[in-house]
Amino acid sequence: MPHIKLRDDLYGITSLLDFRKEMAAPLCELTHVLLRGESGLTHSERELIAAYVSALNDCVFCSSAHTAATCALPGGEETGMQPMRKTVDELKISTKLKSLLHIAAKVQQGGMHVQPADIDKAKENGATDLEIHDTVLIAALFCLYNRYVDGLATRRPNDTEFYSALGQRLSQRGYTMPADGYHTLNYQKII
Amino acid sequence: MPHIKLRDDLYGITSLLDFRKEMAAPLCELTHVLLRGESGLTHSERELIAAYVSALNDCVFCSSAHTAATCALPGGEETGMQPMRKTVDELKISTKLKSLLHIAAKVQQGGMHVQPADIDKAKENGATDLEIHDTVLIAALFCLYNRYVDGLATRRPNDTEFYSALGQRLSQRGYTMPADGYHTLNYQKII
Repeated sequence: MPHIKLRDDLYGITSLLDFRKEMAAPLCELTHVLLRGESGLTHSERELIAAYVSALNDCVFCSSAHTAATCALPGGEETGMQPMRKTVDELKISTKLKSLLHIAAKVQQGGMHVQPADIDKAKENGATDLEIHDTVLIAALFCLYNRYVDGLATRRPNDTEFYSALGQRLSQRGYTMPADGYHTLNYQKII
Repeated sequence: MPHIKLRDDLYGITSLLDFRKEMAAPLCELTHVLLRGESGLTHSERELIAAYVSALNDCVFCSSAHTAATCALPGGEETGMQPMRKTVDELKISTKLKSLLHIAAKVQQGGMHVQPADIDKAKENGATDLEIHDTVLIAALFCLYNRYVDGLATRRPNDTEFYSALGQRLSQRGYTMPADGYHTLNYQKII
């Protein structure tokens, strides 16, 4: 049961966006520009970073949602990403992305954990300053989301169908606010 | 030295806002509405939560900046908050705020650490659902900022005068984007 009174037909982050609408708009805009705007990383690579950090933070809702989004985007299914996967060795991804996930894992522990050697390794593997920046900010943003969603004990569906539908939606519409309101993320009306 | 190429006349978060201007606008807007918008908590109480979480995350830049902002706002100086203070017992604040800081510390560790008993205690001490929500989101937002600022090893001034001037600025203008650009947060032109 959520720690505060939230609409009982909404789940995870959606119930919080509905609770504090003033904050929903800039949070969605930041997420959309970071995960869907100009970047050297593909949409599925960025979703994979979000899913991985969410797994490290033990956030089932976000890990499941962003794994589903990863797999719904071009090139995502082939990576072998799974909900709550905290290891990267077995993923079928580039060495560049592996070294960026290594940086993301350091960020998840705390900013001071990122060392020059981690950055050098990513650069050797072809990562640009922009890609390193975006990786750090995506990891930091999901350290926010995971704490927001679980810190208020939001409701979490257990069936995989929910997350598949949400992943499809995120792959098609990104994080723009739906013109018809948050209820389109409602369990019954997810697409 | 920062991990990526940033303007060398800017510090901390400001150098990152300058690096990725597309993301600066929604991030500043979210921060402004959360720390300065409608809430049951005063501006200095919200800054104190930000400063406290930043200290727990060992982020000297953010802890110093938001302690200075706390002290520059009405009621802030009297709390006895200091940069990098990680304990709350000696602070001269309400029992309600103490119990909200207790929740913020749990959020800093991870969302799942917040237990129903922590929420019940805050409610017994007079906290509303809105105040609990805002506390959790402020704590989560500074888990983002602290990781962003330190994860990219941004430059950090060591003199207290810099943070006093920044605190004054934040107390007067909040987190609205300056019309004349980020350079107004430049060390030489901070006010």
